[in-house]
Amino acid sequence: MINVAILGLGKIGSGVAELIEKNKAIICREIQDRINIKYILDLRDLTGTPYESCAVHDIGTISSDPEVDIVCEMMGGTKPAFEYSLECLRAGKNVITSNKEVVASFGNLLCDAARDNNVRYMYEASVGGGIPLIRTVKTAFAGVEIKEINGVLNGTTNYILTQMVNNNKTLDDALKEAQALGYAEADPSADLNADDSCRKICILAALCFGRLVPTSLVSCKGINEIKLTDTEIAAKFGAAIKLVASAKMHELGKLDIRVSPCLVTKNNPIRNVDDVYNAVNIIADLVGDVTLLGRGAGKFPTAGAVLSDIIDVAKYVGNTQPTQELMECANEDEVCDEFTTNCKYYAAVKQDAQKIKSDFSGAEILYSDGQLTAFICPDISRQTFYYILEAGGYDVLSSFRAI
Amino acid sequence: MINVAILGLGKIGSGVAELIEKNKAIICREIQDRINIKYILDLRDLTGTPYESCAVHDIGTISSDPEVDIVCEMMGGTKPAFEYSLECLRAGKNVITSNKEVVASFGNLLCDAARDNNVRYMYEASVGGGIPLIRTVKTAFAGVEIKEINGVLNGTTNYILTQMVNNNKTLDDALKEAQALGYAEADPSADLNADDSCRKICILAALCFGRLVPTSLVSCKGINEIKLTDTEIAAKFGAAIKLVASAKMHELGKLDIRVSPCLVTKNNPIRNVDDVYNAVNIIADLVGDVTLLGRGAGKFPTAGAVLSDIIDVAKYVGNTQPTQELMECANEDEVCDEFTTNCKYYAAVKQDAQKIKSDFSGAEILYSDGQLTAFICPDISRQTFYYILEAGGYDVLSSFRAI
Repeated sequence: MINVAILGLGKIGSGVAELIEKNKAIICREIQDRINIKYILDLRDLTGTPYESCAVHDIGTISSDPEVDIVCEMMGGTKPAFEYSLECLRAGKNVITSNKEVVASFGNLLCDAARDNNVRYMYEASVGGGIPLIRTVKTAFAGVEIKEINGVLNGTTNYILTQMVNNNKTLDDALKEAQALGYAEADPSADLNADDSCRKICILAALCFGRLVPTSLVSCKGINEIKLTDTEIAAKFGAAIKLVASAKMHELGKLDIRVSPCLVTKNNPIRNVDDVYNAVNIIADLVGDVTLLGRGAGKFPTAGAVLSDIIDVAKYVGNTQPTQELMECANEDEVCDEFTTNCKYYAAVKQDAQKIKSDFSGAEILYSDGQLTAFICPDISRQTFYYILEAGGYDVLSSFRAI
Repeated sequence: MINVAILGLGKIGSGVAELIEKNKAIICREIQDRINIKYILDLRDLTGTPYESCAVHDIGTISSDPEVDIVCEMMGGTKPAFEYSLECLRAGKNVITSNKEVVASFGNLLCDAARDNNVRYMYEASVGGGIPLIRTVKTAFAGVEIKEINGVLNGTTNYILTQMVNNNKTLDDALKEAQALGYAEADPSADLNADDSCRKICILAALCFGRLVPTSLVSCKGINEIKLTDTEIAAKFGAAIKLVASAKMHELGKLDIRVSPCLVTKNNPIRNVDDVYNAVNIIADLVGDVTLLGRGAGKFPTAGAVLSDIIDVAKYVGNTQPTQELMECANEDEVCDEFTTNCKYYAAVKQDAQKIKSDFSGAEILYSDGQLTAFICPDISRQTFYYILEAGGYDVLSSFRAI
């Protein structure tokens, strides 16, 4: 019998509990054992709910019970989620989380604690909801060198941007709609200012490149600065403006990691990811790229990701768990400066293609209609790109980083 | 030290050998051990190649060597690939394959042999090249019920269809181009008549639904019957005609499995998969859908998939390998009749929307311009759909299954 404890009976926690009950037969067949929710820790009194008999309020009840094999931390926030997770790992429990804030802030410490205690700390649900990103990076790309990863990792902002492009809505109107539909929180600031995407790309980059970058070192811009004209111009040549989180290892061993509104060109596989869907494109040396696309949030998609971790861990209960991968913290020297590090930049200007080609070496013209020319510079720093635009007297109608 | 033997030094086999040499440091870090290619079995004399010293011509040398841990069967065809694989599994070697023909024809026997001998039979590379489909179905969806899977699984035909739609080429011209570019074989019949897609969907369905359907029981149509006008009509409303392989479990426990040209509507995530790319959309109960997209073939993408299996297996060498999943063969009674089983059908006709709506209950009009009306019937059998079209005196301009 595998005994599970759930910390926090919110949207995800209750999704996990329901999924375990509904899919019990499938899960038991898969893990070749029975599964039971022994405890649910919540601040609320759960009297009258189906979980009345397993409600607890003290983490010590869970961490000290030798029968508990797996603890699912679905609390949100770092306090007390981090301390509770650490306590459970140290007590020899496997811990599974959907909490991106805890993983991005303390993943290194929790992975260390898991390895020290021969258990595992699993976080598939912390990034990309129902999209199996963590597992794919860990397994499918295990033997190759990942070069770059670009993703639309926040469903709320992607929904807003889709509405702006497809239905000509303003950001404010689209936001109100997203809130009415339950996609955006009452306080949508972590979505809009890109904190949410930032935490997720830090977690993915830690897996891809072996370095957990503190979110404070990541250059982060939200969608607030996008105007309707920006999306209209991009649509002229089949491109889109999306909030893209990117991480790339540069030759010097420094990590270029950033989140910003970004021009996504027509042929990029994440171009067509609309509404609340998320998508991530992973590019590896020699073997090429893979894109994963799906529901990046929501009760059951995220609970399904937690369940995949539960099954993975449950298969090894009673035997040795596979060795926990570690996350090493990156320091400031290991992170690129976003102003001076080359990437792709895009601008739509009033000047003609001829002038652009002579001012920007290697510029690729995306569109030109006499009124407006859109182009991408494939390998230039932000500093240099905007310096040339200014020095050249360009009338800039729209400009962003590009992928 | 993990010792690997490679059977067949063709495109994939040499890709695996090169990838192991190039990425040795990454692989060793990942498996916490050294890795060595001990044997390469090939009909040819490998004198003068880098593999001269490990060339062998007799499978017995490999199967009888207790030092060999992993055998990579990259031969193609079933004879002698199946016998060699079985011999190696019975000798206690883990076997990894990229050979879809062997897995689709004998996967059940080889999985049985692996389990009986406490080793594993792995086939990530047999479907979708560099796209981690097998692993995702096995792990990410382990605890949920998969409802349906639809995929563009053949890069050659997808390239041809993309050329027909985007560049108005005929099938014949596009095929010649695909051959010139090395995408299509000199004899492209297994691609064109959909045998290749059929083998792949049988393998995926075996994992999703636990039943390996013999390819002879699958209704299979190739792209030969698609005309330029079909793709032109679909483009009018943003849809595409693709060669789609589908598997779906029906309520009665029967599996609906088919491969055919198919209308893929604008919002379907596999709509935008062009050229030699493959894409698969997996729909599961409660947790929603996930789409995976990438290079479905090619030397290094496929070799990368083999390498991910090598690493997975290598981690357990010296310990107990995880239990091999089995494949049970489906018999005729467990497979739906494609004529009488409901799915979605599409037609573009000269008649107007009014007549369609009264003849087909639940019909969804996709497009109508006075000359032509395009519609989808969401839940109807092939038999009934075409009967109504004929009985109603419809002028059918184009018609296919739809997703």
